[in-house]
Amino acid sequence: VEEGNSSFIESAIIDLHPADIAEIIDELDAQEAKYVFSLLDDEQGADVLMELEDDVRERFLKILSSKEIAEQLEQLDSDDAADILGELSEDIQEEVISQIEDDEVASEIVDLLNYDEDSAGGLMQKEFIRAQMNWSVMRCIAELRRQAEEVEKVYTIYVVDEKNELIGLLSLKRLLFASPKSLIEDLYSNKKIISVKAHDTKEFVAQQMSKYNLESIPVVDRQNKLIGRITIDDIIDVIQEEAEKDYQMASGISGNVEARSSVFRLTRARLPWLVIALFGGLLGAQVIKTFEPQIALHAMLAIYITLIPAMAGNVGVQSSALIVQGLANNTLRTTDLKTRLTKEVSVALLNGAICAALIFTFNYIFYQDIRLGVTVSVALMTVILFASFFGTVIPLILDHYNIDPALATGPFITTLNDVVGLFVYFAVSLLLY
Amino acid sequence: VEEGNSSFIESAIIDLHPADIAEIIDELDAQEAKYVFSLLDDEQGADVLMELEDDVRERFLKILSSKEIAEQLEQLDSDDAADILGELSEDIQEEVISQIEDDEVASEIVDLLNYDEDSAGGLMQKEFIRAQMNWSVMRCIAELRRQAEEVEKVYTIYVVDEKNELIGLLSLKRLLFASPKSLIEDLYSNKKIISVKAHDTKEFVAQQMSKYNLESIPVVDRQNKLIGRITIDDIIDVIQEEAEKDYQMASGISGNVEARSSVFRLTRARLPWLVIALFGGLLGAQVIKTFEPQIALHAMLAIYITLIPAMAGNVGVQSSALIVQGLANNTLRTTDLKTRLTKEVSVALLNGAICAALIFTFNYIFYQDIRLGVTVSVALMTVILFASFFGTVIPLILDHYNIDPALATGPFITTLNDVVGLFVYFAVSLLLY
Repeated sequence: VEEGNSSFIESAIIDLHPADIAEIIDELDAQEAKYVFSLLDDEQGADVLMELEDDVRERFLKILSSKEIAEQLEQLDSDDAADILGELSEDIQEEVISQIEDDEVASEIVDLLNYDEDSAGGLMQKEFIRAQMNWSVMRCIAELRRQAEEVEKVYTIYVVDEKNELIGLLSLKRLLFASPKSLIEDLYSNKKIISVKAHDTKEFVAQQMSKYNLESIPVVDRQNKLIGRITIDDIIDVIQEEAEKDYQMASGISGNVEARSSVFRLTRARLPWLVIALFGGLLGAQVIKTFEPQIALHAMLAIYITLIPAMAGNVGVQSSALIVQGLANNTLRTTDLKTRLTKEVSVALLNGAICAALIFTFNYIFYQDIRLGVTVSVALMTVILFASFFGTVIPLILDHYNIDPALATGPFITTLNDVVGLFVYFAVSLLLY
Repeated sequence: VEEGNSSFIESAIIDLHPADIAEIIDELDAQEAKYVFSLLDDEQGADVLMELEDDVRERFLKILSSKEIAEQLEQLDSDDAADILGELSEDIQEEVISQIEDDEVASEIVDLLNYDEDSAGGLMQKEFIRAQMNWSVMRCIAELRRQAEEVEKVYTIYVVDEKNELIGLLSLKRLLFASPKSLIEDLYSNKKIISVKAHDTKEFVAQQMSKYNLESIPVVDRQNKLIGRITIDDIIDVIQEEAEKDYQMASGISGNVEARSSVFRLTRARLPWLVIALFGGLLGAQVIKTFEPQIALHAMLAIYITLIPAMAGNVGVQSSALIVQGLANNTLRTTDLKTRLTKEVSVALLNGAICAALIFTFNYIFYQDIRLGVTVSVALMTVILFASFFGTVIPLILDHYNIDPALATGPFITTLNDVVGLFVYFAVSLLLY
């Protein structure tokens, strides 16, 4: 396909959106990618760079000189430029920064690199529109025209006082319809200004923006001075990442991989959980070993030896998933422990009773063994109660100590409940046999 | 707290954001809620109504007359009004609609009710800004001022021709800085207009908006006529719901419940999965029963009877989670089957070899039984390969037939792999003993 027919490719690509061009480049090898890239104009090139998959971009940046990288970064919003720069090694970072021609741009990017990438400061951009409260509408429009050149998307104008403290908001719509002579201080709204501090976590920023339906949020420092803004497109990525992270944890995958990651990365993300599960399984084996004489006496006991722990695992995952989700979207508080437990125990009693009745019936139909039926249904009921209890309490405790509660889901909770399940099953059988 | 001290409450609440007032009302009982609600002015009241939790709002709407509901709806954006109306029963819907005074508003809402709530039409609102391409900037601003009264947030102005077909976009920023006499047709951009059709799914809309970083997207009908727009705040809800739904499916919970839902709803959401797992467990029991003579001969075989299926379950969940996530965020295609399988098998070989080596070592240390060690490690390796295969293939097949691949995760895949795991374990033991 890529046989140097440049005018054809150029005409086919030139009108595409950068996100679409990036998708095409993701599929090409480095040399082809560089060739297609060279056909794009500067601004388009920088946007495409930003939209590439992380690993494709990493490979691609390696074949560019630091001067070329610097040229691309100058075209980008400061937050995106800082993100890309942050992916490079320290010495290449310095080289690239020294190659950026516009000093102001360079210092903005360096400034952004100082913030923790998981904080509001790490997400914010330096491009935003600022108005002084004592300006007239006319002066404001003139000043904005100058500022707006570098601000790709204007949502809300931030109104500041002479100390650069954020004191209000002004919508572009309001400005458009105002008489040219009126003053900003008569137009802006100083009620309900929702802002975040630079050291707030990105999860907090996402919560605020989604709760208050904002498309941009101003970022202030500890003295309430306006230092940046965060736009909704960056927050959508945060929301998606968060959701994916919790889902992956619950499935026993760590470290933000995806189906397309390399075999090595995928193995590294999955193996630790499997080893944990393996040790849990060995613990379970030890429990079975302890009760071996019991099995030798009553071989029929062996047939439910996988059902009971498996059910315990499933119930535990259900309970912990609801807690983890509730904590993630802020509808649950750690202090809700008592209410949650009461509800979980009620649900467990209901589900447990129905499942126990079912298994008693089936056991009777298949094996006509009432004693085994009683053992397995009592064990099932008990195990469902235990699993619900652990599934509820453990994530809440982890959260209380500021450990990610999602750790408690997946293989961890399944394995714990496997062992508990086996123990309960044999304990009940000892009582009844 | 709520002792009729109205002026105190009013002053405390009046300056809060509707989302915060809604949070307070969520915690009150119906009578207190109605009282606090009565203190709010009309617009604030409607916004608060929109922000309430679904079940709180449902209870609350029951104590309002259809006239009162109609008054609230008139204050809301058409999409929100249609959403709330859609939650009511058909006859109350009709009553409320007949009580809406403004005929245009009523017909807009009725129109929106016709769309499937999971389609772009079900998400869109009728409030947007439209400009004819032959207008001058001055005329455009005058017309916009009229239209903008009912449009809360203006992002982009949609440019249409005389047949109301969408032909371009114009940013407010561009309009603000244009000379009053220039024509819209010289200002607007007709490149890369990204729009959706009314019958597109909401997942598709979410993908488009997040891929192209849009804060609003125009909705057109089959003839490319402009009929509405969708704003990013509604799409954030879609993204969150989708992610939560997949996570819940993987945890064996169906039907969009949360920790705060009633005991009955929680039970109903969880029981079906437990029953599926129970039947799987019974199948497993049947497998064990078949091999009972083998266990009776070699009782030590029993000790790994839970470890093998549990590991199979974990591996299956890992594989399927990656596929489900890849399909959900569109980084995977159903046609990728061969590539995916090769990669999965490689990962499985690596993880399997390491886990098999571990268990062989531990088995030797604890039980000094080489034959058992060979049996369990061969079985583990085989089972990990099988589980990876099923975990990869089943969600891809479901997706191919347009069934939600998330169905294949959670208890379903665990249970399948439990049964396969048991079978493999005993089959290997038959070969070696």
